Amino acid sequence: MGLEQVLDATSVAVVGASKKETKRGYQAIKTLIEEKFEGRIYPVNPKEESILGLPCYAKVSDIEDPVEMVLITTPATTLPEILEDCGKKGVAGAVIIAGGFGELGKDGKELEGRIVDIARENNIRIIGPNTSGMMNLKRNLNLVGLRDVPKGGIALICQSGNMALSLITEASIKSQQGFSYYVGIGNEADLKFHEYLEFFQEDPGTTAILMYVEGMRDGRKFLQQAYQTTRKKPIVMLKSGRSATGKLSAGSHTGALAGISEVAAAAFRRAGIIVIKNSDELFPAAETLASLPHIGRKSIAILADGGGHATIAADELTDLGVTIEPLGEKTQKRLRKILPRGASVRNPVDVAGGADENPAVFADCAEILLHDPQVGGLLIVGLFGGYSIRFAEDLAFVEEDAAHRMGKLVKDSHKPIIVHSLYNHARPHSLDLLRYYGIPVYDALETACKCIAVLAEYGSYLRSYHAKSKFVFSKGRKSKPRGREIFRLAREEGRNALFEYEAKELIGLHGGPVSENYLVHSQKEAAAAAAQFEGAVALKIVSHDILHKTDAGGVKLNLKTSDEVRRRYSEIMKDALAYDPDASIRGVLVEAMMGQGLEVIIGTKTDDQFGPVIMFGIGGIMVEVLKDVVFRVLPISERSARRMIEKIRSVELLNGFRGKPPVDKKAIKELLLTISEIVGSYDDIQEIDLNPVIVYEQGLSIADARIILKKDMKISNW
Amino acid sequence: MGLEQVLDATSVAVVGASKKETKRGYQAIKTLIEEKFEGRIYPVNPKEESILGLPCYAKVSDIEDPVEMVLITTPATTLPEILEDCGKKGVAGAVIIAGGFGELGKDGKELEGRIVDIARENNIRIIGPNTSGMMNLKRNLNLVGLRDVPKGGIALICQSGNMALSLITEASIKSQQGFSYYVGIGNEADLKFHEYLEFFQEDPGTTAILMYVEGMRDGRKFLQQAYQTTRKKPIVMLKSGRSATGKLSAGSHTGALAGISEVAAAAFRRAGIIVIKNSDELFPAAETLASLPHIGRKSIAILADGGGHATIAADELTDLGVTIEPLGEKTQKRLRKILPRGASVRNPVDVAGGADENPAVFADCAEILLHDPQVGGLLIVGLFGGYSIRFAEDLAFVEEDAAHRMGKLVKDSHKPIIVHSLYNHARPHSLDLLRYYGIPVYDALETACKCIAVLAEYGSYLRSYHAKSKFVFSKGRKSKPRGREIFRLAREEGRNALFEYEAKELIGLHGGPVSENYLVHSQKEAAAAAAQFEGAVALKIVSHDILHKTDAGGVKLNLKTSDEVRRRYSEIMKDALAYDPDASIRGVLVEAMMGQGLEVIIGTKTDDQFGPVIMFGIGGIMVEVLKDVVFRVLPISERSARRMIEKIRSVELLNGFRGKPPVDKKAIKELLLTISEIVGSYDDIQEIDLNPVIVYEQGLSIADARIILKKDMKISNW
Repeated sequence: MGLEQVLDATSVAVVGASKKETKRGYQAIKTLIEEKFEGRIYPVNPKEESILGLPCYAKVSDIEDPVEMVLITTPATTLPEILEDCGKKGVAGAVIIAGGFGELGKDGKELEGRIVDIARENNIRIIGPNTSGMMNLKRNLNLVGLRDVPKGGIALICQSGNMALSLITEASIKSQQGFSYYVGIGNEADLKFHEYLEFFQEDPGTTAILMYVEGMRDGRKFLQQAYQTTRKKPIVMLKSGRSATGKLSAGSHTGALAGISEVAAAAFRRAGIIVIKNSDELFPAAETLASLPHIGRKSIAILADGGGHATIAADELTDLGVTIEPLGEKTQKRLRKILPRGASVRNPVDVAGGADENPAVFADCAEILLHDPQVGGLLIVGLFGGYSIRFAEDLAFVEEDAAHRMGKLVKDSHKPIIVHSLYNHARPHSLDLLRYYGIPVYDALETACKCIAVLAEYGSYLRSYHAKSKFVFSKGRKSKPRGREIFRLAREEGRNALFEYEAKELIGLHGGPVSENYLVHSQKEAAAAAAQFEGAVALKIVSHDILHKTDAGGVKLNLKTSDEVRRRYSEIMKDALAYDPDASIRGVLVEAMMGQGLEVIIGTKTDDQFGPVIMFGIGGIMVEVLKDVVFRVLPISERSARRMIEKIRSVELLNGFRGKPPVDKKAIKELLLTISEIVGSYDDIQEIDLNPVIVYEQGLSIADARIILKKDMKISNW
Repeated sequence: MGLEQVLDATSVAVVGASKKETKRGYQAIKTLIEEKFEGRIYPVNPKEESILGLPCYAKVSDIEDPVEMVLITTPATTLPEILEDCGKKGVAGAVIIAGGFGELGKDGKELEGRIVDIARENNIRIIGPNTSGMMNLKRNLNLVGLRDVPKGGIALICQSGNMALSLITEASIKSQQGFSYYVGIGNEADLKFHEYLEFFQEDPGTTAILMYVEGMRDGRKFLQQAYQTTRKKPIVMLKSGRSATGKLSAGSHTGALAGISEVAAAAFRRAGIIVIKNSDELFPAAETLASLPHIGRKSIAILADGGGHATIAADELTDLGVTIEPLGEKTQKRLRKILPRGASVRNPVDVAGGADENPAVFADCAEILLHDPQVGGLLIVGLFGGYSIRFAEDLAFVEEDAAHRMGKLVKDSHKPIIVHSLYNHARPHSLDLLRYYGIPVYDALETACKCIAVLAEYGSYLRSYHAKSKFVFSKGRKSKPRGREIFRLAREEGRNALFEYEAKELIGLHGGPVSENYLVHSQKEAAAAAAQFEGAVALKIVSHDILHKTDAGGVKLNLKTSDEVRRRYSEIMKDALAYDPDASIRGVLVEAMMGQGLEVIIGTKTDDQFGPVIMFGIGGIMVEVLKDVVFRVLPISERSARRMIEKIRSVELLNGFRGKPPVDKKAIKELLLTISEIVGSYDDIQEIDLNPVIVYEQGLSIADARIILKKDMKISNW
C-alpha cells in the first residue's frame, strides 16, 4: 500500500478537539478551516457537542462517513485505546503529537512498541509519535500549528520542530520557492524516512526533497531508497549530531541514535544525496535544486562588478570543487567588445565599472556566457539590483529589463543563473523578478557559491550514475552451501569466530586468493605437510581460546628444514599450554611463507544504523598512526572499490614509491569485492579482519584472516 | 612621524575639482560639505573660479593657508607634477585615486616608482594609488564616494572597493556598530599595511581593526606590527586569493602578489590575528570583537528553545574548537527550578517550551548562566525576539524587558552574549535593544557560532601571550665574526652555497650538535683521519659542482678498515671525474658513521612576502608521500618550536611507536631554535636544508647540511 490515503487524505478526524483557544485541538481545527482544507473535518471529543461550528463525535468509530486520517493530540497513555477505536473505523493513518514514548527511556519504549503493534494489527500507519505534525500543501491539509506556509516544490522531512520553523520562515521571507509537503518525522516508530522518500519520489508536485536528520532507525533501507530517488529528484540533507555534545543534545530530544558520522556522510553522498554541513545553506540548496536545472559536464562562469567579490567567489568555488575554466577565445572576444578596457574577460569576468551607467550589461554578458557551450552555469556576484539605489533611480527600469532577460535566458538555455546581491535586503523589484523566474538571490556570497556548487554536484552525480556497475553476487553462488556449512559448524561448537583456515576456505570459495594450507596434529604430520611446499613454511596455532597467537608463542615463521618444523611444532604446543593450560587446541596450520610486499588491511564491521561497512587501509603507521583508512557501506560496486583504493591519503605508496614497483591494485579491488560478496551472502558475519594482506607487484596473499560471528542471529534481508 | 596629519587632517585640497556632477572631483567636495567635514576645503582646478561656493585654486601651492591633505582625482600621468607642487606647499599626505600604476605592468611600475620617489623627497605620504580613498569618521573627513557610513569603533583597511562597499552596507543594515576610519589600501606603493596598523593601535576611537587583504608588499613588517597591535586591539582579517583562479583574479585587479597561503594563515594566527575564511562572517566577527569583552579560560553555554538549533550549535562550536562543558550541579539545579520538566539543563540548555508564554525565561536563564564562574559567555539560539510574532503580541513587552536585562547583564558580568534569532529579519524592537547594548543578533546560526568562537579565540590568544618566550639571539653572538668569515669566503669564491663542512661548522658555532669531521685530499690523509674515529666512517665528496653527491658515486658509507678507506677514496675520485670531468673538487670529508634513528628534515626558505620561513617534517614517506610538514615564519620562539614538533600529523612516530623508545624531541627543538638563530644572524642565507637529521633516544646527528646563499645580497633589517 502506498501512502496516498495518509499523506493525501480527504477526511480528517481530530481526536482531542477542544473549544479552548490555546489548545492544539482547537488550533488544529481552526487552521484546517481557515486554510480551506479540501476535505471533511471531524472533531472528536466526548465532552463537546460541536466545535467551531462542526458537529463533535465521542469517538472516531462514531463517525458515519469514512475517515482516512486522524490527528491525535491527547497524551501518550490514551493512545492504545484510541488506536484500537480507529482500527474499527478503518482509518489509514494517524499523526500522534504526544511525546513520552521512546525518547523517555524504557517505559516509553514499551508503550511505543505497544501502539506500533496495535497500529500494525489494524493497518494504521503512524506519523510520529513526538512529532510536530504533517502538512499537504496541495490540499491545504495542515496538521501543524504553523500558518501561511509558502507553497512550492520542496517536500520537507524534518526531525526537529524548530528547524522546520526555521526553514519555513526562511522560505516565506527570502524566497519565492515553497513546500509541497511537510512531515515531522518524530520518533520514526512506524513510518520511516525511506517510506516518505518513496512517496515523494512519485509525487508530481515535488521537485526536491529537503531533510533535517538527527538519527535514523533504518539507515540501510533509507540508503537503498535514496539510490532510487536521487535518480529522479534531488535530496538535500543536513545530518546533525556530529560532535559528542551535539549527539548528546540530539539524543536527549528525539531519542534517535546518531551513527558513525563520517561513514554516514560518505554513504549519503554515494547515494546521490546533497549533504549540507552549514544549516544556513540548507534551504538555499533545496530552493536552488527545486527551481533550476542542474549543471552538466561543464565549467561555471563568474560575472562580477568588482575584483574583491570575484576573487572571493573563485576561492570559494575552488574550495567547493567546482571548476572555473578560462573562457574560450571567441567568448572572450565577444565580451571584450561590450566591456570597458580595464575589464577582465578570462573568468571570473569583471565588468570593471562597465555596468555603472548601464546595468543591462549583466544581461548582455549573461547571454554571451550561457551561449558558450563550454559554460554550464553562471554565478553573478556584486551589486546587481542595487544600481538604482547606488547610482541613479532611473536605472531601476534597466535592471528590471535585465532581470526579465536573464529569467528568459535560463528558460531558453536550460542553464542556471544564481545571483549574489549586496542590495538583496532592500528587496528591489528587479531581484523579485529574478526570483519569479526561479533565479535565487542571496546576500551571502558563500551561500550563492554553495548553491551553484550543488547544481554541479547533482549534475555530476547523475552523469556518473550510469557508470556504476550493479551489485551482483554471482561468483560464489555455487559455493554457498559449503559456506553455510562452515558457519553451522562454528555455531554448533559454540564458537563466536571462524578458525583462520575456515575463514580462508570461505574466502577461497568466493574466488578470493588463498594459498594452500594444512591443519596438522603432530610433529610428524607437520613435517609431512611442510614437505609439500617448495620453500620455507610458517606454523600457526589453531585454537579458539588463543586470540593473540603471537603473544602465546603460537606463530613460527620461515622454517626451512624438516627438523626445524618438528622442533618448532613442539615449542608451539608447549608455549600454548603455558599461556593457557585450559586452551582447547584444534591443531597447527602449516602454510608457505609469504613473500615481501606492501601490507594492507581490509576489514568489515556492522554498524547499528547502516549495517555492514567495509574498511581499507595501508598497514603499519598509515593505519595505526595516521588513521588513514577509507570506509564504505556494503555492498560496494566495482567503481566504489576502485575509488576506496584511490581515496587513501597515502595512495602513492601503492603506486610505486622510491623506485619500488607499483603493487597490484586490481588484486586489492577484487579482494574488496569478494569480501563485499561474502558479507552479503551470509547473515552470520559481524566482523571480518584481514590483517595483514600482503600485496605484490602481481597478486596478493592474505596473511591472516579472522571472521567474527554475530551474537544473536537475526534474519537480515538484502 | 606619525600619520596624524594624514589620517586626522584638518585641511584638504581636492585636485581635479570639477563642476560636473558625475565627476569624482565634484562629488568629493559635495560629500565633504554635506557630511560637515570639521576642517577647510580647497578645490584645485586652473579652469574654475569657484566650485560649490568655495574659491578654486589653480594649483595647491597657490593656497595661502596650510594644507595637510590632498585628494588627487586626475589621471596617473599628471601625478609627478602635482606631487612636486604639493611638496612646495608642505603637504603631509595625498590620496591618489588614479589607476594605471603597478597593477598595469612594467610602465605602470616605473611611474609608480617615480611618484614614490617624489613623495619621499617631499615628505609626502601616499595612500594608494589605485585606491577608493580614505575616511576619518570622527572628523567627517570623507574622501570616498560613499555616504552615510555608520560611525563606530571599527577601523577598516580594505584592498577592494566593492568589499568595502559590502562591509559598510552590511554595517548600515544589520548592525549598530560602525567605523572609525576607512582606508582603501590600493597599490600600497608608499603607506603600507603595518603603518596603518600602528596608527589604529593608538587611536582611542578604534576598538577593533578589520582587514580585507589580497596580497601584501611587506608581510614581515606587518606581522611584527600585528604582534604588537593584537595585544591591545583585535584584528580580524580575510585573506583572499587562496585558489589559483582567485590568485589570478586578485592579481589582475590590484597587482598584489598572493603569497604562500598556508604559511601566511598560520603566521597571521600566531600574531594573534583572527583569520576569517567565510566573507559573510567578516563583518560580524569584527562587530563582535569591537563591541563585546573576549572570553577567558572558560566554557561557553548554549541556551536554546528547541533541540534542533541546540544540536546544530553544539556541532558547529565543537568544529570551531570551542569547549561546551557540562554545567556544574549547582547551576543545573537553579535552572531546573525555573524550567519545565522536559527541559535539558546540562549544556546546551533547552528551555523546551518554557519560554512560550514567558520569554523572560531567557533573561532568567542568562542570569543564572553568566553568574556561574565556569561559564565564560553565552550563545542564545532560536526564536527570541519572535515570541511576540509567533505567540502573542503582548509578549513584545516581555521580550523588550528581557533584552534590557540581558544588556545590563553583559555590562555587569563582563561576559558576552550573542544571539541568533529566526525573527531577526522582522527587526522586532527587542532585538534592536540588544544591539543597542552591543549584543549582536544574527539570522545565520553559523555566524552566531563563529562570533562567540572568535571571542574565545582572541581571549585564548591573549592568555597565552605571556607564556611566549622572547626571541633572543645570544648563544652564538661571539661566533658571528667567524660565521661572517665563512660566508665571505664562499662569496669570494663565487659559490652560491656553503660546503657541507662549512655549513656544519656554522651550525656548530651557534651551539648546534655537529660531529667531528676532517677534510682530506689524499688516500693517506683519508686513512689517517679515519683512524681518529673509533668505529666505521663515511666518506663524502666536497665539490661545488656536484650537487647530488650520491648520484656521482661521491658517498661511501660504513667503511671499517684503513684499506677500505683508501680503496673507496680512489673510487670516489674516479667516479667524480667520470660524472663531471670539469668538476672542481675541494676534497673528501671523513666523518664517523651515524647510528640508527628516526630521520627528520629541517629546512628554511625565503618567501617573497614573509621572508624566512622554517619547515619541519619526519623523513621518508611522511614528507614525500603525505607532505606532512609544518611551516613557521622565522624567528620562532621556544614555544613555537615545541608546537611545530607537536603539530606534525605523524607525531606519534616521535613518541615511540610499536615499542620503539621515544626520540629526543628536546634536541629537535634546540636545533630548530639554532637554525632560527642562524637565519636571523646572517643576511646571506636563502635556504637551509638539513636532510636527514637522525634523531636518537638521546640527541641527534645532522647527516647532511646544505646552505644556499642569496643571489643579490640586500641588507635586511630585523
